[in-house]
Amino acid sequence: MTENEQRDARHNARMARKKAVIDDRIAHAQAERGVLLVNTGNGKGKSSAGFGLVARALGHGLQVGVVQFIKGRADTGEEAFFRNQPGVRWHVMGDGFTWDTQDRARDVARAQAAWALAREMLQDPGIGLVVLDELNIALKHHYLEVDAVLADLRARPLRQHVVVTGRGAPAALLDAADTVTDMTPVKHAFAAGVKAMPGMEW
Amino acid sequence: MTENEQRDARHNARMARKKAVIDDRIAHAQAERGVLLVNTGNGKGKSSAGFGLVARALGHGLQVGVVQFIKGRADTGEEAFFRNQPGVRWHVMGDGFTWDTQDRARDVARAQAAWALAREMLQDPGIGLVVLDELNIALKHHYLEVDAVLADLRARPLRQHVVVTGRGAPAALLDAADTVTDMTPVKHAFAAGVKAMPGMEW
Repeated sequence: MTENEQRDARHNARMARKKAVIDDRIAHAQAERGVLLVNTGNGKGKSSAGFGLVARALGHGLQVGVVQFIKGRADTGEEAFFRNQPGVRWHVMGDGFTWDTQDRARDVARAQAAWALAREMLQDPGIGLVVLDELNIALKHHYLEVDAVLADLRARPLRQHVVVTGRGAPAALLDAADTVTDMTPVKHAFAAGVKAMPGMEW
Repeated sequence: MTENEQRDARHNARMARKKAVIDDRIAHAQAERGVLLVNTGNGKGKSSAGFGLVARALGHGLQVGVVQFIKGRADTGEEAFFRNQPGVRWHVMGDGFTWDTQDRARDVARAQAAWALAREMLQDPGIGLVVLDELNIALKHHYLEVDAVLADLRARPLRQHVVVTGRGAPAALLDAADTVTDMTPVKHAFAAGVKAMPGMEW
């Protein structure tokens, strides 16, 4: 065999072993039910990963509900794009990050109204995916109580997926989740002086 | 003041200080250019965050190109959803993870053909966002050479954003990137016996 053929043969043998391991894992993962996914951490990608799942779910013909609990601006690309897609219900809690408004009583009232809408989605077996964007921030500021939120999440339809995003997910939510990813920042363009660019940051 | 009013006042003062810090940071980040974003790590959300940015970019009227370098199955929700959206070019390198095919020579040829398409996108100033999904896997297996890839990335139009996804991003790519997130797994439904569910994992 030439050196290249040897390399290919080693690669192919390694991949055959990998296939056996993966096939075995798949054989042991057969429960079919909705997944509670939490995207937390200080890095980029928590919300955008949720919006990617919106596209993925729509591609499988699922209905999708999105509630955005905290929002920095009124003209995001994701809202402009998804709001008019068939099969999507999109609700925004209110304008402005809480540090822009400095009005806690108003924030609490808005968060609770937004949760009432989220709860409707969590009771609707026709909705296959519910995205609760930046819910963790609302929990962190105690605009909503985590126990009430968890009770509604637990009572949802068996096959409904839920994505919760935001920094600082509370421990009780992490315990209840099926899948948790910590989006860990390695570096960010913002620190290097790049403006928040449309299509990338909003 | 009541206890509640005191709590609100403390919260509001804290948020006012936070606003000053954020306003100052924004004043110092004024460069307008395309961002090279890398989503790596072993956790969930690398590709889906890329697909969320596709929606975000489309919402701002940008044209988008997607090349998927490694793909597990032919019927993903993201492809079904985005392939027919106006403004999207979507290319899939070939069917099957490499551990299913065990044919390295074929994988190399396909990766290089896929890169030729990616390079066309990276030379087109009409495309505002290019997603190179699972490119890191193709680099890791040396289907493509990282230096050639970096040269094409560096030569792209000034305002074009690029997202690269996949485990094990090479160090040279991390160095070249503006923003890097490590999607760190905390837990995964698969390990708890849940099947890969449509709308969530594919």
